[in-house]
Amino acid sequence: MPEPVSGRGRPGYSREDILRAAVDAFNAAGYEATSMGALADRLGVTKSALYHHVSSKEELLDEALDRALDTLGGVIDEVGTCGGGDMERLRLLVRGTTLALCAEAPCVTLLLRLRGNSDVERRAMDRRREYTRTVVDLVSGAQADGDLRADVDPATVGRLLFGMVNSLVEWYRPDGHLSPAELAELTGKMAFGGLVPRS
Amino acid sequence: MPEPVSGRGRPGYSREDILRAAVDAFNAAGYEATSMGALADRLGVTKSALYHHVSSKEELLDEALDRALDTLGGVIDEVGTCGGGDMERLRLLVRGTTLALCAEAPCVTLLLRLRGNSDVERRAMDRRREYTRTVVDLVSGAQADGDLRADVDPATVGRLLFGMVNSLVEWYRPDGHLSPAELAELTGKMAFGGLVPRS
Repeated sequence: MPEPVSGRGRPGYSREDILRAAVDAFNAAGYEATSMGALADRLGVTKSALYHHVSSKEELLDEALDRALDTLGGVIDEVGTCGGGDMERLRLLVRGTTLALCAEAPCVTLLLRLRGNSDVERRAMDRRREYTRTVVDLVSGAQADGDLRADVDPATVGRLLFGMVNSLVEWYRPDGHLSPAELAELTGKMAFGGLVPRS
Repeated sequence: MPEPVSGRGRPGYSREDILRAAVDAFNAAGYEATSMGALADRLGVTKSALYHHVSSKEELLDEALDRALDTLGGVIDEVGTCGGGDMERLRLLVRGTTLALCAEAPCVTLLLRLRGNSDVERRAMDRRREYTRTVVDLVSGAQADGDLRADVDPATVGRLLFGMVNSLVEWYRPDGHLSPAELAELTGKMAFGGLVPRS
């Protein structure tokens, strides 16, 4: 249960509100360029009120990155329990990742923009690399099964595929004209079917 | 002809060397977080030697963004002179953009990470939006000609397509195992043909 932060005449903020405001600020101005003071100003609370709930800026970064990685990890786990072949798993991964990105776009944006400037960032980037390995393994497996074209390099396909899906964090808006489910259908159509009509 | 910067016992640097070092520093630590002093240290020259050649950090940002945008603008111009239909133009655009990104990866990385925090950044982002409009117009035109599947939203397809291509700046390495020409072939295959083999 999130505790409200006592502000100065402003309504109380939950820990969740603080995290969301921090992630928005980090994405807008950069993590390094955002101070706890600037974050307190943004929320309209005193810096000491903010420190009552959060011990450091890095704690907020760590929590936001964990959320992004746990959401993406949940998709990997779900795909792992699927009984189909690797192509079926790859389709589920593209679909699930699209939905996960729409659901947690701000935290995933932060994850994708990491530069590896601290231990927290490097740990998150290690987990991102595990994700990439899973994708590349599924592409190779689907090729071996004859379900995915043989004339492409699996590692590069994996990067391009998730480059496409990850771009969602740059332009997805919850009030846009396509729903997350419609976007998930579209990423699958483009990646697997291609843009040229199949006769 | 670039003029050498007189260093302290280090070999002279050309304006081009300074620009490349600045772009690498901006990409690694963020534009806001990189000072002219830090850049001088990186080059092993004094700050005053650096200011002899560059009037401000913003001048370097402006020049790097112009280079990225001019390279991408050159692709658009080339596509405009192509006599084929919109699908042919879209294929050329995907191919040409892939090659342009490989050739100017650091400057384009900088462009893609802009947050719109200054006039220079906002001007560059306006030019990026023109690019997106060109892509979306070509997707719509190719759909009207029956050359591109009709069951997809052109604006979203444009964003996903260039999300895929733009992801190159995150992972392309000049010494990687695929050449720019091979990558350009692969982005075209994936986007237009799709990953499922065509019978």
